[in-house]
Amino acid sequence: MEALRARIQRDGKHLGNGILKVDSFMNHQIDPVLMREIGLEFARRFKHLNPTRILTAETSGIAPALATAMALEIPVVFARKHKPVTMGGQPFRQSAESHTHGRRVELLVSPEYLSADDRILLLDDFLATARTIKALVRLIQESGATLVGIGAVIEKSFEGGRSELLDLNIPVESLAIIEKFEGDQIILSNSRN
Amino acid sequence: MEALRARIQRDGKHLGNGILKVDSFMNHQIDPVLMREIGLEFARRFKHLNPTRILTAETSGIAPALATAMALEIPVVFARKHKPVTMGGQPFRQSAESHTHGRRVELLVSPEYLSADDRILLLDDFLATARTIKALVRLIQESGATLVGIGAVIEKSFEGGRSELLDLNIPVESLAIIEKFEGDQIILSNSRN
Repeated sequence: MEALRARIQRDGKHLGNGILKVDSFMNHQIDPVLMREIGLEFARRFKHLNPTRILTAETSGIAPALATAMALEIPVVFARKHKPVTMGGQPFRQSAESHTHGRRVELLVSPEYLSADDRILLLDDFLATARTIKALVRLIQESGATLVGIGAVIEKSFEGGRSELLDLNIPVESLAIIEKFEGDQIILSNSRN
Repeated sequence: MEALRARIQRDGKHLGNGILKVDSFMNHQIDPVLMREIGLEFARRFKHLNPTRILTAETSGIAPALATAMALEIPVVFARKHKPVTMGGQPFRQSAESHTHGRRVELLVSPEYLSADDRILLLDDFLATARTIKALVRLIQESGATLVGIGAVIEKSFEGGRSELLDLNIPVESLAIIEKFEGDQIILSNSRN
């Protein structure tokens, strides 16, 4: 996705230790025009799998997931990190080590919004180690729903997350792939992704 | 906004103590078609004030704020509750008692995305006691930016938040106003809001 690749090159910042700052257009401030394009691109890549719902995790997954939900006109559910007062009963509950927060985070989804007859498209902002995505996969398995595809806006291929998802035998799509950092330089993959 | 009012009546649930559950279309699952309409309606009501940026708070403010940002084609910034590793320097920082979380939450915005020449439209999911909104107002004042309007998807008028905002002398718009609950019944205001 050329607009995204150009934006990462222009505004992304490597902070060291493989951490990419994209706060100016995705993770703190959101560019709504770019985000709409991201949603349209995910829709184009996943529509043929007939997803019935999108699942993501708060916070930074919400924007790309909502943009995609608007394009596909299917609901999006975001897993919560804390149980809100409005969440009754026994939620589906998994946890993952968080890269960016440096601690274990819980992911909770109410059974009201994830059921065995759903076909789920799983979306997130980053695919890095895949720890968060794998926790969401376990949530989906817990619910009995069918996972039909996984999408990430930005993949950091050097963190190896993609190989963790091979066993699932479903399409895994990233809209931009970072192969490595060389100091300040962000080296994007030239593949069609 | 008729579609929203109808949805609140159909799917909203009064859990007692004035707490409204709208998890099926706004706060856990999001209906993207309704959310797009919400964004278009906020855009219609606030466009003439020429906002340059939208400010909201994570998590539940993000969807309506992004939908509005898409309609107005201006960036949206969401205040973070925890400082992420990517947030350098001294963020603007305010705190508010949270109704739904039962504890004090911090709201952080990087000075990179809020500056003195901005005209800010402040959006959130609920206007109830206005504690969160007032913390965001203080963030904007701290930055030197101009606050041009405040919008909430749902107002609970019986919690009195609107009167807390009168001093600001700016438009405050809600897309649906709940006057009171009578047991399970949700009593919406008949005013044009």
